[in-house]
Amino acid sequence: MSTLDEDQTLLPPRDLALMVDLYELAMAQAYWKTDMGERATFSLFFRNMPDHRNIVLACGQQNFCRLITSLCFTSEQLKKLESFGMFEQKFLDWLADFRFSGDIWALPEGTPVFPQEPLLEVQAPVAEAQILESLAMNYVHLETVIASKALRLVQVSGGKPVVDFGMRRMHGIDAAYRGVRAYRIAGISGTSNVQAGKDFALSVQGTMAHSFVQAHDDEMDAFKTYARLYPDTILLVDTYDTVAAVKKIIAWLKANPDISIGAIRLDSGDMAELATECRRLFDEAEYTKIKVLASSGLDEHSIQELVRNNVPIDGFGVGTAIGSAKDSPNVELAYKLTEYAGKPRMKNSPGKQSWPAAKQVFRQSDSDGNYTGDILAARDESQQGEALLVQTLRDGELVDGAIRPLADICEYSQSAVAKLPPELRAIDRDADYPVTISDHLKAIQKKTLEAIKGTD
Amino acid sequence: MSTLDEDQTLLPPRDLALMVDLYELAMAQAYWKTDMGERATFSLFFRNMPDHRNIVLACGQQNFCRLITSLCFTSEQLKKLESFGMFEQKFLDWLADFRFSGDIWALPEGTPVFPQEPLLEVQAPVAEAQILESLAMNYVHLETVIASKALRLVQVSGGKPVVDFGMRRMHGIDAAYRGVRAYRIAGISGTSNVQAGKDFALSVQGTMAHSFVQAHDDEMDAFKTYARLYPDTILLVDTYDTVAAVKKIIAWLKANPDISIGAIRLDSGDMAELATECRRLFDEAEYTKIKVLASSGLDEHSIQELVRNNVPIDGFGVGTAIGSAKDSPNVELAYKLTEYAGKPRMKNSPGKQSWPAAKQVFRQSDSDGNYTGDILAARDESQQGEALLVQTLRDGELVDGAIRPLADICEYSQSAVAKLPPELRAIDRDADYPVTISDHLKAIQKKTLEAIKGTD
Repeated sequence: MSTLDEDQTLLPPRDLALMVDLYELAMAQAYWKTDMGERATFSLFFRNMPDHRNIVLACGQQNFCRLITSLCFTSEQLKKLESFGMFEQKFLDWLADFRFSGDIWALPEGTPVFPQEPLLEVQAPVAEAQILESLAMNYVHLETVIASKALRLVQVSGGKPVVDFGMRRMHGIDAAYRGVRAYRIAGISGTSNVQAGKDFALSVQGTMAHSFVQAHDDEMDAFKTYARLYPDTILLVDTYDTVAAVKKIIAWLKANPDISIGAIRLDSGDMAELATECRRLFDEAEYTKIKVLASSGLDEHSIQELVRNNVPIDGFGVGTAIGSAKDSPNVELAYKLTEYAGKPRMKNSPGKQSWPAAKQVFRQSDSDGNYTGDILAARDESQQGEALLVQTLRDGELVDGAIRPLADICEYSQSAVAKLPPELRAIDRDADYPVTISDHLKAIQKKTLEAIKGTD
Repeated sequence: MSTLDEDQTLLPPRDLALMVDLYELAMAQAYWKTDMGERATFSLFFRNMPDHRNIVLACGQQNFCRLITSLCFTSEQLKKLESFGMFEQKFLDWLADFRFSGDIWALPEGTPVFPQEPLLEVQAPVAEAQILESLAMNYVHLETVIASKALRLVQVSGGKPVVDFGMRRMHGIDAAYRGVRAYRIAGISGTSNVQAGKDFALSVQGTMAHSFVQAHDDEMDAFKTYARLYPDTILLVDTYDTVAAVKKIIAWLKANPDISIGAIRLDSGDMAELATECRRLFDEAEYTKIKVLASSGLDEHSIQELVRNNVPIDGFGVGTAIGSAKDSPNVELAYKLTEYAGKPRMKNSPGKQSWPAAKQVFRQSDSDGNYTGDILAARDESQQGEALLVQTLRDGELVDGAIRPLADICEYSQSAVAKLPPELRAIDRDADYPVTISDHLKAIQKKTLEAIKGTD
């Protein structure tokens, strides 16, 4: 491979089987070589809430499940593996035939999820389940991180629309694309991203950039062109002097009663002061329907402040803050073995103990249908409450009904969030949701721990 | 489009022309409609250093340039645009014929870049240049953010290898893939990511997961299988009890002198204490060549501490900290019009003033070749120092020599970083690199500002 060839790769491959950490393939070969072919359960979960989050929305599981139904190693990829010199030809033949044959249980997408609760569980011959590790984590991580951040913006907006302007701040093309799916699940109202908005049926919105104003010798020429071309458009008024621009717009509208604009957008300066003044000017001129929109470095804290102070802003455009989930860009997902060959397994490293066995999450409700807490239990237990994990793959095939329309996912997620204790919806203080461990699961852990100690 | 169809989209398209913010197309149509076809210059830069960064490495420009040489709108994408009802058929025909016909000037990839300095400049008929905005920002942002963070890890590692374990924490597949290219430019020694490591010629490395140990009834069985299958492998020793595991490994090695292992990996507990104890045990047993590697939540601060205290650790695996550039996941890139129809342009919004005109960055060196500061100037000025921006596209075609082998980029970047003032390489305090504005550029700004005020 020449150096130039290596550098030809502008986008990731669409065949994702080698988007894998090397150790997964090394372990898979070791299992294959030593005939360790028993079924394993791996659980995808996080140990602690991410910083600044009271709610994590589990997203991405459905597309991950769909993705792995067609996951396979191409001949080009197998050649890459051969070049490592560490894989036997017969193991590469095994990979050439690889199709995931196992089961997956997953939380419905959009489910609020809390520490120790599985977002999904993979049950398959151990080598197969191991190979999915990094892809499962990477794939679910993106949408979960983005949806969990976007939810905070939605929660403080007082019902006013929050629109995604984040493509430019997101980490690459996949994030900018699938992130929009996550935004929709969280309740974001629109996006500037044409392709993703169309594909995920989220309203695509746009105004103008400063460059459009600057390219015209007179700011008003830019506004006039736009207003004539796009009825009810949004004009960006802060390129030179916000209040002066609004006054000129009003004068022009008065002189041209056939023209109608939808809104102005403020993108710099003191938002509260400027929005109040622009609103006053429009109202005075009897343009009460022209909206005032705000952008420029907004996050959930500044939006909460504006909404609490009843600043007359009708909608918010947010870029940097949601695009990378800036204040907490990771959920520390772990993909851990919890069962092998019918025996529960666990890790006993300091601070990283895990709960063994295949699991189920039972969500409790009060008589009004509001959630009061979860029970983390072994999968085969009976407990009160709604069993959240549902089977999505059986013997490598999607289970009927496992793939839900995005509109249903959004509706479910937004209704589930509304049933959570209200203190979880605060953005500026930590609040915990009660997750209790079932006695049976505790007993399994105790027994598993004794078995580990017995081998020392 | 049925809801299910909308949800079929597991990966972003490979045709990226609609990875665009709607306003870019709206503005493009407005330019087209009003016959504003003059050439514009747009500059991609940031106004302020990102938090916790003294150095930003400009990366991603080369692949962006290559990408847009083939950028075009597919008929499927044009149908999506038609559905908006805001684009005229003749404009859609113009898009159908769209090929970027302009020029691009860019910093060589891996160049340390500072506030106000262009990472790249696009010069083209204004509609064409406008359409590239979001793609340019998204594309360059990812690699620039990741390389700038990774550089910090390399700087504190005292020459010891730092290996990327971050795929699981990165934002989607594109980030996990192209991020590895950025890691290599910054000087990261290896990656766990098979596909990206192979494609970008970065050493692919891997050990074992806790699951492999847990799947075996006896930890030593897992170690024995691995050591026999993979000569000089790395054993993960913290699943149950680190020191006990190392003692058992030593006893087994003593009894099996034909076996050789390369290293152990510590992934939990007190790294300094455990590494010191494991090193002592190996040295006492005369296994001085067995290395001690560390992972588990490491970042540049913990690595700096371990290195400064001479803790006997031979290499570091880092995941979360570099995968999302956790402490500063954004560079606030702006793509601003600086010239249209031969006239300099600028924005005058509070706190967001920009420097007009097409530019050049002149980097000054002392007699030892170390960098002493930059002059930001108009492109047509003569100034002392090395002119950093080079033309990479002319009339839509790549300029000969514009695409450099990745190995050359890495070498250039690492040598450029070494020439910076040493205080910039500190990770725990801010230090500024001197960037001065040329008198000529100041004069252009003054004149442009007067022209703006004249229109009020």
